[in-house]
This record gives sequence, structure tokens and C-alpha cells, in this order.
Amino acid sequence: MPDVPHFDKWLTTVLNKGDVVGVDARVYAVSAYESLKLKLEESGLEIDGTNDFVKAIWLDRPEMPSAPAYILDEKYAGKSISSKIDDIRNSCKTKEVNSHLIATLDDIAWVLNIRGGDVLYNPVTIAYLLIEEDTSTLFIRRRKLSEETKQILAKNNIVIKTYKALESYLKHNLINTNCLIDPDRINQKVLGWIAERNTIIKETNPSTFYKAQKNQTEVNNIRNAMRKDGVAMTKFLYWIENNVQSGNVTEITISDKLLELRGQQEGFVGESFSTIAGYRSNGAIIHYFATPETSKTLESSSFVLVDSGAQYFDGTTDLTRTIPLGPLTDEEKRDYTLVLKGHIQLALAKFPEGTRGSQLDTLARQAMLREGINYHRGTGHGVGFFLNVHEGPHSIRPEENPNPLEESSIISNEPGLYRAGKHGIRIENLVVTNKWKETEFGKFFEFETLTLCPIDKRPIVAELLLEEEKTWLNDYHQLVFNKISPSVDGGILEWLKEATNKM
Amino acid sequence: MPDVPHFDKWLTTVLNKGDVVGVDARVYAVSAYESLKLKLEESGLEIDGTNDFVKAIWLDRPEMPSAPAYILDEKYAGKSISSKIDDIRNSCKTKEVNSHLIATLDDIAWVLNIRGGDVLYNPVTIAYLLIEEDTSTLFIRRRKLSEETKQILAKNNIVIKTYKALESYLKHNLINTNCLIDPDRINQKVLGWIAERNTIIKETNPSTFYKAQKNQTEVNNIRNAMRKDGVAMTKFLYWIENNVQSGNVTEITISDKLLELRGQQEGFVGESFSTIAGYRSNGAIIHYFATPETSKTLESSSFVLVDSGAQYFDGTTDLTRTIPLGPLTDEEKRDYTLVLKGHIQLALAKFPEGTRGSQLDTLARQAMLREGINYHRGTGHGVGFFLNVHEGPHSIRPEENPNPLEESSIISNEPGLYRAGKHGIRIENLVVTNKWKETEFGKFFEFETLTLCPIDKRPIVAELLLEEEKTWLNDYHQLVFNKISPSVDGGILEWLKEATNKM
Repeated sequence: MPDVPHFDKWLTTVLNKGDVVGVDARVYAVSAYESLKLKLEESGLEIDGTNDFVKAIWLDRPEMPSAPAYILDEKYAGKSISSKIDDIRNSCKTKEVNSHLIATLDDIAWVLNIRGGDVLYNPVTIAYLLIEEDTSTLFIRRRKLSEETKQILAKNNIVIKTYKALESYLKHNLINTNCLIDPDRINQKVLGWIAERNTIIKETNPSTFYKAQKNQTEVNNIRNAMRKDGVAMTKFLYWIENNVQSGNVTEITISDKLLELRGQQEGFVGESFSTIAGYRSNGAIIHYFATPETSKTLESSSFVLVDSGAQYFDGTTDLTRTIPLGPLTDEEKRDYTLVLKGHIQLALAKFPEGTRGSQLDTLARQAMLREGINYHRGTGHGVGFFLNVHEGPHSIRPEENPNPLEESSIISNEPGLYRAGKHGIRIENLVVTNKWKETEFGKFFEFETLTLCPIDKRPIVAELLLEEEKTWLNDYHQLVFNKISPSVDGGILEWLKEATNKM
Repeated sequence: MPDVPHFDKWLTTVLNKGDVVGVDARVYAVSAYESLKLKLEESGLEIDGTNDFVKAIWLDRPEMPSAPAYILDEKYAGKSISSKIDDIRNSCKTKEVNSHLIATLDDIAWVLNIRGGDVLYNPVTIAYLLIEEDTSTLFIRRRKLSEETKQILAKNNIVIKTYKALESYLKHNLINTNCLIDPDRINQKVLGWIAERNTIIKETNPSTFYKAQKNQTEVNNIRNAMRKDGVAMTKFLYWIENNVQSGNVTEITISDKLLELRGQQEGFVGESFSTIAGYRSNGAIIHYFATPETSKTLESSSFVLVDSGAQYFDGTTDLTRTIPLGPLTDEEKRDYTLVLKGHIQLALAKFPEGTRGSQLDTLARQAMLREGINYHRGTGHGVGFFLNVHEGPHSIRPEENPNPLEESSIISNEPGLYRAGKHGIRIENLVVTNKWKETEFGKFFEFETLTLCPIDKRPIVAELLLEEEKTWLNDYHQLVFNKISPSVDGGILEWLKEATNKM
């Protein structure tokens, strides 16, 4: 909130010169630690990162998670472990770097085609990966790896050491190298193990950029994951339409139903985040999560906003639909149409190579801005391939982000409109950036919408849509019908026909 | 060009360790000097800024310009000198700054409501201004000031010293202050005169931000300047339409005619930049300037692009019209319509407080981007009030500029389309950012178009325009007719009626 001071500022007002601020350097990124240190020192304060202060009082601290880890087959990942390591080594070579420590779990997962279950919703495994000129070492709890996994890693020349061996290895075996670390993504404690005997090069992990640009196998797999997710969503939309009247549908049962329907899909691993199902005013709460105390029972009016996604072996999904449950007010209809216009305008965008998300963000907002309406959140976040549902480095937000939208990167298109105390509306699809054409004026990109799920037409105020917007919606619904209809039948197929027919 | 190394990089490749690079620190900004120094030192080179190397060989070097300077009446400037100085002193106080040296001529002109003729097109006078806690000192050639000007400055507590007195004053009289200088806008030599006995605070000149936000008197004055400029332009457009057939109209005679017609307007001071008149392929050359060698004679086909502007006591103008001289190809018509669509979409934009130009730039390009067309230049630059036609800190460009579009700031709206060897099209008006409305979603701004001059309708492919775009154009032309028609008659009035009637 605007009036609340940042904690580093606050510390300088409550402490006295010479006081020491203790932090646990294991959970403090290098850049954050350095910036805090600088601010404290300016006020005559010290920082001490050597202690784990919570240890003494956190008596029932759980064990570190230790779910099995496994190698994702190349038919899913599309690129071999060794060729990914080669790419990173080549990138390091151009920077005159000869060692590179990765601590970010989704970067490690991408480089080694390894997946696990240590973090809820994110299929990653806790580990460190050190890439040197001739060897690559994975520091991981051995018990998480099956014999088969160990063999595949060995075949790709990955040495396996225990998770706890990292400290000793860095202190004793890593000497006189130029070591690349990502200062936003390595903790201060680990830096201390490297810094004394090596030269530190601070840069974003090269894998962050490689990972964002999906290979053709990944994109094709994601198309298949989207089809499966669309089938589950179609069944869900049919179910909700036929069950709201029962009076038994709550925000929590929505989550349960979605999980059940997605669980029927081949290759389903789990949810990609905790489902956001917000009825009426709950839909206007950002990052809402229904609890037994807040969960509303759905009635036959207004909207329910449902934002959900899944992890499949062949891709990560994330979509939002705003479903009308009965008669709507004029304001609800108009708001819905403005969000839809924004969604479509962004989907229709063409843009030159090098375009940043902040340049496109306005397209998703302009329809509502013209009415004095805005949403105080981003429009799109990058999405991983069977990895984290939020992935950098690109984004579509009003704030500047210097990373352009690269070819084959995936991002969400999710404008929204949130009227506190009334309703929340969001329409979200995932899109991939494709090469469109090259002309005398340069290279141009366009978005291809990946998500396959009907967008409810009933709230639309047709006069507010441009011809090109109607055409986009009709084309999109045609695509949805073609892809989803072979997998549904009976009442659901009839419903899908109606939900996707031309307007 | 992409393959040409920057000169600092080039220097490191052709020089040997220990070599010294000499620059004239009087013409080198502090930030540029520091960055060059750093790069040279990294390669074992030195920098020496103590000499004026050109002096020895530039034998017919002209005297420093010395045109009379004068005070712009408050009925034009809208704010007194002393209240502007007060604002700057208050801004300095919040930064714990107690002295501030300004070297930027347009900043000095704004603070002191002073204008001059030392720089072609920019009505500024060469000087330095030092603002201390109790005194303000203008360092300027005394001969440029009339007795009356001196009196007005004295009444506003401005001490006048000779231009050459700056060095001695800074070295001997400015001691132990926190001195604010703008590192991009003070030369390295002058910094040397301050740095030894003062603490340097490097920040953008506060006046840069004040100057950008025009006061209500300035905005009203600009509206009047625009009306006068529109009358001159209307006469010009009528003239060109009736004279091209003579075979005597060249790019150079266009400049002459514009100067003649603007010269008839009350309060005209001069051109605000050198007129760009480019026929056919010359219109596609960026920053084209017709010379007797390049000047084309206009024929009855294709377009002539005319970008021109004026300085009036009540404002600075800058507009571009692209005039069809006869039959057009389909490509010319389509290109023209795409540029017009971009211009109108930007003019129609509504945007929240804090919006940066890079967020709006896309709106002016989207219509052409959808066809694989782009222009490799900015869309809009800030404009001064009877001052420089290019003025910061804001802009509308694809590149990030952290300075948002503030209320009452003026900027150009000038998308274009340049086909090398064929034609150039640009449609440019100046707009002012006005408060539009405040809602539960925040404060919103809109643009008001200030420039008053018909936009040629003949090349427009009507089917490509949206309804809202046609409405904007019709409303704009209605406004142009209402404002300009009282000042023209006969054939020109008839022409204006036709040029501004509804489409």
C-alpha cells in the first residue's frame, strides 16, 4: 500500500547506529542481500547473514521434500539433455565463462529434462546444477532418483552428487574459474562458497532465455495438451450449466469437479495452480482462493469467474472463463464485452521483431480505457512447458520489461475487469508467438491462440464488437468445435455446437 | 548502421595502451565524458579534456552569436519569473540542494521568460543561469540586453554578470554547496569549475519537467497560434492545388511560399525548423532538406510531403500534410489510409495517469503492422511553448522512455510510411494531454488536437476506416472549418468548405 514503508526503510527508522540486522543468507538472493546491505550501511547499520534464526524456535520443521524425480522423454521435451548442455556451454564460452551454477528449479528441470514433485503445482525437483567446461554435476538427494533415471543422466555425462555435497564441492573443487551466477536466482550463502576462489560473473541464467523459446516438439505437444484440457473444460461448462439450479454448486465444488474432469485426461499430472473460482464479488478479488469460510454457493444470476490449469506430460495449461449463470445487468454485459474486445485486440496484434510486452499491453486495455475503466494488474505472463505456470523473462504488463516477445514463446492473454463488491471478469487464453512474415519493413510476429475452450457468447453486447472482432470470435469457435467435438458426444456435443456457433 | 562500431569502441581498436585521446571538454556532456573515460581506461587509454584542438586550424571561426534578448510578456508566458524561480528553489530544497546551475538554453529561456535569436529556429539566448538560495545570477553578454530587459530581470532579483564571468564566479564564489547539475546537459569543463569545492548532485534539471507541463495561458495562446498557422496553411494548400499545373512549383518554392504566408500572420517570429518538402521518393527520405541539386519540380501525380512549423510569440507549431497532386496508385491510397488510421487511433486514445509514450506508440502503428508495414522512427516528440520544436522529457516512441505523458504537455502525433524510392506519407498534428475523467479505476487522460489544418480526404480508401475514425475526421474538419473560415474568403473559403466537408 502506498503509505506503508518498505521494510528496509522501516528498519533504518527503528534501529540505532551500530545495530545488526540478522537474515538467513540461504533464503536471500544475492542482489536483494547486496541492496539491503547497502541501505543498512548508509544508516550505520550492519547485516549478518550467518545464522538460521528460525531453527531454534521452529521445532516441528518438516523434512525437505523428497518426491521421486524422473526424466521427461524426448518425445515430450523435444531436445536432448546433452544438446541443451552444449547450448549453455556455448553461451558461456562467448562470455568467457567456464563455470555456471544454476539454482532455479525450473531452469534445472528444463536443462536436464528432469521433473519431480517437490513443489506443489510446479513439477520440479530440488537440486543444484553446476556446469563446468568438461563436467556437469547435479547435486540432489539420491533417493529421489531411480536406477533408470541415474542411467539416463550418466549417459548424458551428468555426474550425480548428494545435495549436501554442494558446499564442499564449491569450496574445494571449483577454483580459478569465471563463474556465471544469476544474482536474482542464487542465494547469498551459496555465493559465499564460490566468491573467494573464483571470479563471479553476474548475468541472467542463459537457460532462462532458451527455456522461453519452445521447440517445435514442445509446441506440438502443447497443442495436444490444450485439446485435452479443452475437452475437460467443455464437460465442466456443460456440467455447471446443468447443475447451478440444484443449489449445490459452490466455489469449492467447482475446483473438485475440474480436478475430476482433468484427471480423466491422458497424461494428466496435476493442477498447475490452485483453481480460482469466484462467484459475484469474489471474482473481483485478485488471487482469490475459496475457503470454507468465503466460498459462495452459485445462484442463477451474475458471473462466476473460473481460472484454472493443469500439468500434463505434454504441456502446462492456464485459462480463465467468466460464466454467466442467469440474467445479467447492463453493466455486467458491457463489462464482459469490453474485456472480450481487449482479449481479441491483443490476439489480433501483429508486431515487429523486438517488441516488448509493455508496447502491446495497451491493445488489451484500450476498449475499457475509452470508458474510464482499467485493471491494476498485468495482461500476460510467460508459461512453461510442463513446468511453472509463471515463467520469464517476458511479460505483457504496463511496466517496462526489456525482454521482447521472442518467437515460439508462450504467454497468457488475460485482460480483466474487477468491480470491487460487484463482479470480476477475465477471459484468458494462452498464445504462442509465431513468425508471421518478413517484408521490406522487417520481420513481423503474430499470436496463435493455443487454448481451446468456448468463450461464452451470451453476455456479449454485439453492437460493441467490431467486424474483425466478431470474425475472430467465430473463427476461434470454429477451431474449438473442430478440435473438441471428436471427443464429446450426446448432450455435451449439442451444447458445444450451440456454444461455438456463429454470432 | 548495424555493422559500424561506435566511435569509442573504434578508438580502442586503433590506439595502443598508454595513448591519449584528446577531446574539448567544453563541448562534451558530463555523462558522455565519464562514459568515454571509463571505456578508454578499460583499454589502458587516457582521456585529456583540457584543449580546444580545433582552435589552431579553424582560422575564420565566427564570433559567438549575439542577437538581442528580450523578456516575453507574462500575457504570453502565463507565469512570472519570480514564481518560476520559487518553484525551482522549492524543488531543490526537497533534494537538500542549495545551488543549481542550468546550461540548457531552453530551460533558461523558460525560467526567465527570456527569448533571443542566437540559435537558428530556436528562440533562445546563449547564457548560463545559477540559482542559489538567495540569489540568481544570469551569465550573459550584456550587449544583448536592452535597458528595459535589464530592469525586468533586476525587478525579479536576477543578478546579471558577463558570460565570461562564469568561470571565476564558480571557482571563487560557489563554495560548500550541494550543487544540482544535469549530467546530460552540463559540459565537463564547467563541472570542473564546480566539483572541487562543492558536492555535485546529478539529476535532470527540475525546469525540464516544469517546462513540459504548459500552464493554461500557454495552452490558450497555443490555440491562437494554431489558428493563425492554420490560416497560413489553408492558403498554402489552396495555392499548391492551383499552381502545380504551372510546372513552376518546386520543393524549394514550397518553403518560400510557406514562409511568405506565415510571415503575414500576427506575432510571427520565424520558422520553427527548416521546412521539409519532399516530392515523390524525396518524401521517403528521413530529415530530407531540399537543395538546388535535389529539389524536384512537382508534377500532377503522387504525393508531396510538407513538414513545416513556425515560431509565434504565442506558440510553436509543427505539422505535416501529405498532399496528392493527381492520380494515385492503389498502393499510395492504401498507404495514406493506414497512416491516417494510425494518426486517428492515437488521437482517440484514452490512458491512465502515468502512461508512457512507448505504451501508446503501438496504437499509431497497429493498422500498418497488420499489413506488415512499419516506420523506423518515433511517433511523437514534445514541443516547447515559443521554444524548441523538440522538447523533452516525454516522447512517443517504441523505445522505453520512463517519463510519462503529464497533464498539459504537448506532443506531436506523426505516424508515417516511407517506401524507399517511391513515396513518403506522414500526417502530423500537435496534441495536448488533458485530464479526461476520474473514476473508481483512477485518473484518465485524453489528447486534444491543437493543430488546425485540413487533412486531405481524396487519397482515403473509405472502406478501410472504422466508423469511429470517420467520425473523428468529420469532427476534426468541422472544428478546422469553424476556426479557420472567419479568416479566409472567396476561392479559399470555397476550397476550405470542400476540404473539410463530411465524408
